[in-house]
Amino acid sequence: MRDELDKMHEECGVMGIFNGDSVVRNLAMGLYALQHRGQESAGIAVTDGEKVRVSKSMGLVANLANSGKLDNIAENGFAAIGHVRYSSTGSRTLANAQPMLVSCKWGYLAVAQNGNIINAQELRAEMESNGHIFQSTSDSEILLHEISRTKADNLPDAIRIAVKKFKGSFCLLFLTNDSMYVVRDGFGYRPLCFGKKNDSWALASESCAFDLLGVDYVRDIQPGEFLSISKDGVRSEQLIKKDRKAFCIFEFVYFARPDSKIFEQSADKIRRKMGKKLAEESPVDADIVIPCPDSSTTAAIGYSQASGIRFEIGLLRNHYVGRTFIDPSQNVREQKVKLKFNTISGVLKDKKVCLVDDSIVRGTTLKIICKMLREAGAREVHVRIASPPVRFPCSFGMDFPTPGELVANALEPKEVAKLLGVESLGYLSVDGMRECTGSPDDFCGACFDGIYPENGEA
Amino acid sequence: MRDELDKMHEECGVMGIFNGDSVVRNLAMGLYALQHRGQESAGIAVTDGEKVRVSKSMGLVANLANSGKLDNIAENGFAAIGHVRYSSTGSRTLANAQPMLVSCKWGYLAVAQNGNIINAQELRAEMESNGHIFQSTSDSEILLHEISRTKADNLPDAIRIAVKKFKGSFCLLFLTNDSMYVVRDGFGYRPLCFGKKNDSWALASESCAFDLLGVDYVRDIQPGEFLSISKDGVRSEQLIKKDRKAFCIFEFVYFARPDSKIFEQSADKIRRKMGKKLAEESPVDADIVIPCPDSSTTAAIGYSQASGIRFEIGLLRNHYVGRTFIDPSQNVREQKVKLKFNTISGVLKDKKVCLVDDSIVRGTTLKIICKMLREAGAREVHVRIASPPVRFPCSFGMDFPTPGELVANALEPKEVAKLLGVESLGYLSVDGMRECTGSPDDFCGACFDGIYPENGEA
Amino acid sequence: MRDELDKMHEECGVMGIFNGDSVVRNLAMGLYALQHRGQESAGIAVTDGEKVRVSKSMGLVANLANSGKLDNIAENGFAAIGHVRYSSTGSRTLANAQPMLVSCKWGYLAVAQNGNIINAQELRAEMESNGHIFQSTSDSEILLHEISRTKADNLPDAIRIAVKKFKGSFCLLFLTNDSMYVVRDGFGYRPLCFGKKNDSWALASESCAFDLLGVDYVRDIQPGEFLSISKDGVRSEQLIKKDRKAFCIFEFVYFARPDSKIFEQSADKIRRKMGKKLAEESPVDADIVIPCPDSSTTAAIGYSQASGIRFEIGLLRNHYVGRTFIDPSQNVREQKVKLKFNTISGVLKDKKVCLVDDSIVRGTTLKIICKMLREAGAREVHVRIASPPVRFPCSFGMDFPTPGELVANALEPKEVAKLLGVESLGYLSVDGMRECTGSPDDFCGACFDGIYPENGEA
Amino acid sequence: MRDELDKMHEECGVMGIFNGDSVVRNLAMGLYALQHRGQESAGIAVTDGEKVRVSKSMGLVANLANSGKLDNIAENGFAAIGHVRYSSTGSRTLANAQPMLVSCKWGYLAVAQNGNIINAQELRAEMESNGHIFQSTSDSEILLHEISRTKADNLPDAIRIAVKKFKGSFCLLFLTNDSMYVVRDGFGYRPLCFGKKNDSWALASESCAFDLLGVDYVRDIQPGEFLSISKDGVRSEQLIKKDRKAFCIFEFVYFARPDSKIFEQSADKIRRKMGKKLAEESPVDADIVIPCPDSSTTAAIGYSQASGIRFEIGLLRNHYVGRTFIDPSQNVREQKVKLKFNTISGVLKDKKVCLVDDSIVRGTTLKIICKMLREAGAREVHVRIASPPVRFPCSFGMDFPTPGELVANALEPKEVAKLLGVESLGYLSVDGMRECTGSPDDFCGACFDGIYPENGEA
Repeated sequence: MRDELDKMHEECGVMGIFNGDSVVRNLAMGLYALQHRGQESAGIAVTDGEKVRVSKSMGLVANLANSGKLDNIAENGFAAIGHVRYSSTGSRTLANAQPMLVSCKWGYLAVAQNGNIINAQELRAEMESNGHIFQSTSDSEILLHEISRTKADNLPDAIRIAVKKFKGSFCLLFLTNDSMYVVRDGFGYRPLCFGKKNDSWALASESCAFDLLGVDYVRDIQPGEFLSISKDGVRSEQLIKKDRKAFCIFEFVYFARPDSKIFEQSADKIRRKMGKKLAEESPVDADIVIPCPDSSTTAAIGYSQASGIRFEIGLLRNHYVGRTFIDPSQNVREQKVKLKFNTISGVLKDKKVCLVDDSIVRGTTLKIICKMLREAGAREVHVRIASPPVRFPCSFGMDFPTPGELVANALEPKEVAKLLGVESLGYLSVDGMRECTGSPDDFCGACFDGIYPENGEA
Repeated sequence: MRDELDKMHEECGVMGIFNGDSVVRNLAMGLYALQHRGQESAGIAVTDGEKVRVSKSMGLVANLANSGKLDNIAENGFAAIGHVRYSSTGSRTLANAQPMLVSCKWGYLAVAQNGNIINAQELRAEMESNGHIFQSTSDSEILLHEISRTKADNLPDAIRIAVKKFKGSFCLLFLTNDSMYVVRDGFGYRPLCFGKKNDSWALASESCAFDLLGVDYVRDIQPGEFLSISKDGVRSEQLIKKDRKAFCIFEFVYFARPDSKIFEQSADKIRRKMGKKLAEESPVDADIVIPCPDSSTTAAIGYSQASGIRFEIGLLRNHYVGRTFIDPSQNVREQKVKLKFNTISGVLKDKKVCLVDDSIVRGTTLKIICKMLREAGAREVHVRIASPPVRFPCSFGMDFPTPGELVANALEPKEVAKLLGVESLGYLSVDGMRECTGSPDDFCGACFDGIYPENGEA
Repeated sequence: MRDELDKMHEECGVMGIFNGDSVVRNLAMGLYALQHRGQESAGIAVTDGEKVRVSKSMGLVANLANSGKLDNIAENGFAAIGHVRYSSTGSRTLANAQPMLVSCKWGYLAVAQNGNIINAQELRAEMESNGHIFQSTSDSEILLHEISRTKADNLPDAIRIAVKKFKGSFCLLFLTNDSMYVVRDGFGYRPLCFGKKNDSWALASESCAFDLLGVDYVRDIQPGEFLSISKDGVRSEQLIKKDRKAFCIFEFVYFARPDSKIFEQSADKIRRKMGKKLAEESPVDADIVIPCPDSSTTAAIGYSQASGIRFEIGLLRNHYVGRTFIDPSQNVREQKVKLKFNTISGVLKDKKVCLVDDSIVRGTTLKIICKMLREAGAREVHVRIASPPVRFPCSFGMDFPTPGELVANALEPKEVAKLLGVESLGYLSVDGMRECTGSPDDFCGACFDGIYPENGEA
Repeated sequence: MRDELDKMHEECGVMGIFNGDSVVRNLAMGLYALQHRGQESAGIAVTDGEKVRVSKSMGLVANLANSGKLDNIAENGFAAIGHVRYSSTGSRTLANAQPMLVSCKWGYLAVAQNGNIINAQELRAEMESNGHIFQSTSDSEILLHEISRTKADNLPDAIRIAVKKFKGSFCLLFLTNDSMYVVRDGFGYRPLCFGKKNDSWALASESCAFDLLGVDYVRDIQPGEFLSISKDGVRSEQLIKKDRKAFCIFEFVYFARPDSKIFEQSADKIRRKMGKKLAEESPVDADIVIPCPDSSTTAAIGYSQASGIRFEIGLLRNHYVGRTFIDPSQNVREQKVKLKFNTISGVLKDKKVCLVDDSIVRGTTLKIICKMLREAGAREVHVRIASPPVRFPCSFGMDFPTPGELVANALEPKEVAKLLGVESLGYLSVDGMRECTGSPDDFCGACFDGIYPENGEA
């Protein structure tokens, strides 16, 4: 659903629970809260102390939960890890669904991963030449091979050794018969929260997964941190050291759910600040401010509050989607957008409308929406984007548009406005955006400014 | 999904298209826009001039559209009627799905109905005693029997005679090999819109189904109007005469999509007026106004604008639902609500919160939401309902709660506030609500005031 | 499966059980034994004394049984009727599946029918003109209308009156809240057995359904007999009187399972006699006799025993069928046949082979089989058919080939042999066939001799 | 289906096609002919010259063929290997379905295997300790690891080296982008046939897969032979040398389809000889000889011919099975058997019956059948088994009954007869059985005589 809306794509959500009742059921509910991070497949691996079992399905968490498969693995489970996956076309197979479970010299080992390993293919090629075989195209399989083939004496050491070979973004949850291990890459690209409820520990990409379960957010897993959890308790160490942080700023722009705390701050608060900053940097003469639902509502409220222009709901999302059913003919994209968005002409009629969107990638959907606003009677349409123009590829984005597809790559705002058929277009500045985060230098904004943290390394 | 949220229930949406290309495909898209009126089953009947064929599925329109069944009936179709159904437990079978198609002395005859026949069982009993047989528990089957057994010389006359025997609310679309017939009951309880695009005619419960297809809204079908559509054109007559109108006011309160025009007015506009009126009648000392998403957003914006209290989004809906997957154990309802709603604590923390909801039926969901707001840090919670207390059964509501279940039936607002655990509770008055419609006397508000239009009859 | 083999088609099997434990489960098993009589759909209607409920599925009885639907209706069921359906293309819809259940002035009424009403369309047209509506193309719906609209004081009388209007073949099982009614047409075209086990009564198209359940065969329901079964016991009467019997001889030729007793005789015994008679009438100079499996085995054994020619298995059936998966291209039919039949060349090599088949309709499959025998090394192939040439349409066969398709219609045996590419072809004579039944005049052999019993009526 | 009948179990069938049109479709049809060798899962791997793709499904070949998945991989395919799998409970997962496809240093490599590696776990443990990971419990994954990790310069050499480490029975088909490799173990336990049609080559566990496709049987792949097939042609070499052959004699007793040529002889011919030999060794005073269908028919005909006792069909199999639907209650096994077998009492009544079965394992099904024969009126029942008592575990049989379950393990024939409730029981002798094969010393009959060929090795 999300990908049809011409947005940037997240690449997965992870969750883990160690100890407690109904571990599998609670994990399923936590994954449900993380569903916006990936709708292609969902999976859960669980240990009962003697073996690790895994269950995965294509599609939503609800598919997995309703398949009856979870009942088969839930019994006596005391620790579990789970995964929701978004991925690019072509690799949409169950073979690539996570968690991936293998048997190795240390017994059962499962892993769930959020992030992308930049040097994965290089490592894989080297391993193949050394006689290893691969059954999927997933980074996780490479990782598991790398861990298994170290000369370490034990699994924790093997993980310590192996992950240092990996470049890129990764939040990793490992599960064995009796333990859970957690690693976050040294830059901390992707968020990973750590929580507690009574005597059980939890990890999740976003804190919204905790709220549903009554788990208390404790702190973020630190960039480069390695955590071991067993019946004996939790041990933490700083495994990987980098000289800077590089949190993905797009998590605040669009990815994270507004009610989540990530990177130790509320997504909603930062997003609202971005809306306010946008109002400062790019004011408009308009009668009403409307969000492009649902992701831009907070930014639009911020814009409205800072500008004093009235907030309105002039566009609605239709949430009865399922698999869409439009046949591939003329006007398809337009009708797809019309199936998903409805305009409220009573609100828009004869108004000068300021439409706030969180980001702009290709601009194709936005163009149709602007046309719909005008058809509904809007006198003027002014677009304000609560982030800077996306102009550079994400080093981790498997499904990133090509530079030529990025509307902001070749065109000035005025030209984009003309393309969209609107009176004006304004972006948030890179500095303004970074400022909203409170710690401008701790973020990776490479897709906006072309500065790739990884390149700064030896 | 909707019914789990403890709301009043709509009972179906209908749509018809006569003439034009891709009739079946367009009808499916129109039904998709009406999906909020019924999610239990969907169906389409279509004629190619020689026979009428029907295709139905349980579940969403997308199920029907993706089943491949529509391809089997679409060929050469030039007129079609469709239906989305909501119904009470117990009758959730394909046998009750609509449109219902029969063969009778005038050939094929299909019908799609929105509404409820009050004297259906009485008519059925009489027909059974006269030797008729019934294969479903649907009102539509009774209707078709009644039409077929008249002594009329032709089908239009038979419809004219038969519908006069029916008491209650009904918007009826009939389809034969070559014609479409349309009837709306004399009081006009349910909405029915009439539209046009080039040389094709359309009918729909709400105008939002037209917008998607580029159909222009022409006018409402009048209460008691009988319309005949054939290749020869459209003929209208006033078939049933009542001395008043009785539009269902709950359509404005909750049922209709905000972007729809029904009863010749924009639902969004009326709903906003209700929010404003509520602010006048039941002011509050609060820091922020938040809607109970998604249905109350317009009313909350109205409340905010009239009161000058800041509008905020403090509650979110999670739309990745599918069939829910919670097992039947303790705390189920609470977890169901938590799966569907998320609080944004950054917005709520230490605030005096005014929560605006469109209506209150049992109060069970609202109670949990209020608790969640408080857990998220709200200092005070004030509930404002943009409609009066629901205190009487709807004469047409098959799935209406029993009087004992209606929280407003036995309890004063203060007592309800106590039950919900909030600082205050305020309703819109009956008069205030009626006033917002612009024509107070044209509406049925029996569920609020106990005045049943039908009783006024001889 | 069967229809692809170019055989005559049966049109349904019925079964009923009154009283006893696990009525629904036992009925499902009985239907399973009758599966060869219809694979298009299966259904069961059951009463718990207060209501009749029905469950039907497309496909095999196993589909129905595995769907979980039977659990929903089984509780407290004390009497049930069931049906397996074969039908012609075009009416393969759940709407036509049986039993059909309606509500009428006498309450719930379900019916399961084996047979074909010749004057059904005539009756339907008359009823439509009198204001009745029809939701299917099934004879059973016509029957139920006819019963409901009689002026009788009670249901048994209504059935008595209605069935007299019906011409054709019918074995009818009716189920109400508390009773079961059974009618067989006056000629007794289709078989219907009556059985008993402890205090429960059973009816079935063939006795093989009894054997599985340990039910003892009591007798056949007589042509024209009307049976009422209730908690008060069983009452029989002779309702319809005809001056002759007209059992369908094709039941013995091919339809019935060999282990069944029908028309009060063992199918296997009659079929063996036919094989012996065929050997007398149409001897052959051959090394071995082989059956065309599986239906011709008994006849081939008979032929072998009478002729003294060695019986062998030279052809095998592959029973792993499911839905077949051959794409529609050249040589399809040949490959279909090859998927289903395998030759054993060790048996056939250099032999003069006598292939015995039970009947020949179009001859298309047989032609391919004969070619396969030759490819497997048979020196000569002689075909012997244990029935006469099929030359006339069955008055009840909805799916009967057109006269032009009947290979025996235009061609002499020698010409057919040439068409099949075999050395010789021999049929059983009509008189020989009739003689094998022991009561030659009690059978309808219209498809062989063109004499239609119904025509003899006033 | 087969396993419920208390028979020994086969463990898979394999097929390969190199060159020709419609490779995937033809392979699917070939697998369909091998379906009796495994019904748990089916799969096909195919190369188009640039990549190898695989498609697998649980269940029958028809499931795979009807899933639409084959269309996705069929395009431009010029060589393919396929597999049907039988396996023990517990490993019934898609992860264990074959062919298994991996990527290794030589590119894509797929394998399909019939047989069992005795030292698999030992090899796996060693590989795990060396850092390898495993994603399934299949022998094939071990094999692929072993091949990939050799130090060989090319894939054929790697296969040559790796297979020498494997003890046990194996027929292996490997597929790469451009070649097919074939290996059969040195003893030749399992059959593997080699065929040709125009310019395409084929391999199959049994020749019946060739007949369907018009492929000519050329010869068996020899024990220990290694075959390479590429666009350049076919190269053969003798890779593994053993001092004896050890064909599985159970292939002739029960596994192979009667119309197959395996081990260079017709299964039907050997099976008939066994029946004749049995008649010599264990004569009986009976009126009729009947087979236990369908697998014993040939042996029964042999018995009848040698003894002069009349052959009859007194038992039928019901082939409308699907998943069975009996609930787990008392008498379940008996009803299961009754659902599958029907007695023909006209044949059995008052007769002294000699029932011929191909083998006896636990005896549980046979006991019920004997009881059914008696209930159908048989005066005496004599059982003759066309193989010796099964008394020792098969070294390759993963699903072999425990010694305690083998009815022949502890009991003398007379005691078994008593247990079955029959007048007499006779077996074929080990020497008699071996003699029927024409080369008694080339067969492994360890399950009958306890002599394991592998033990003879250094």
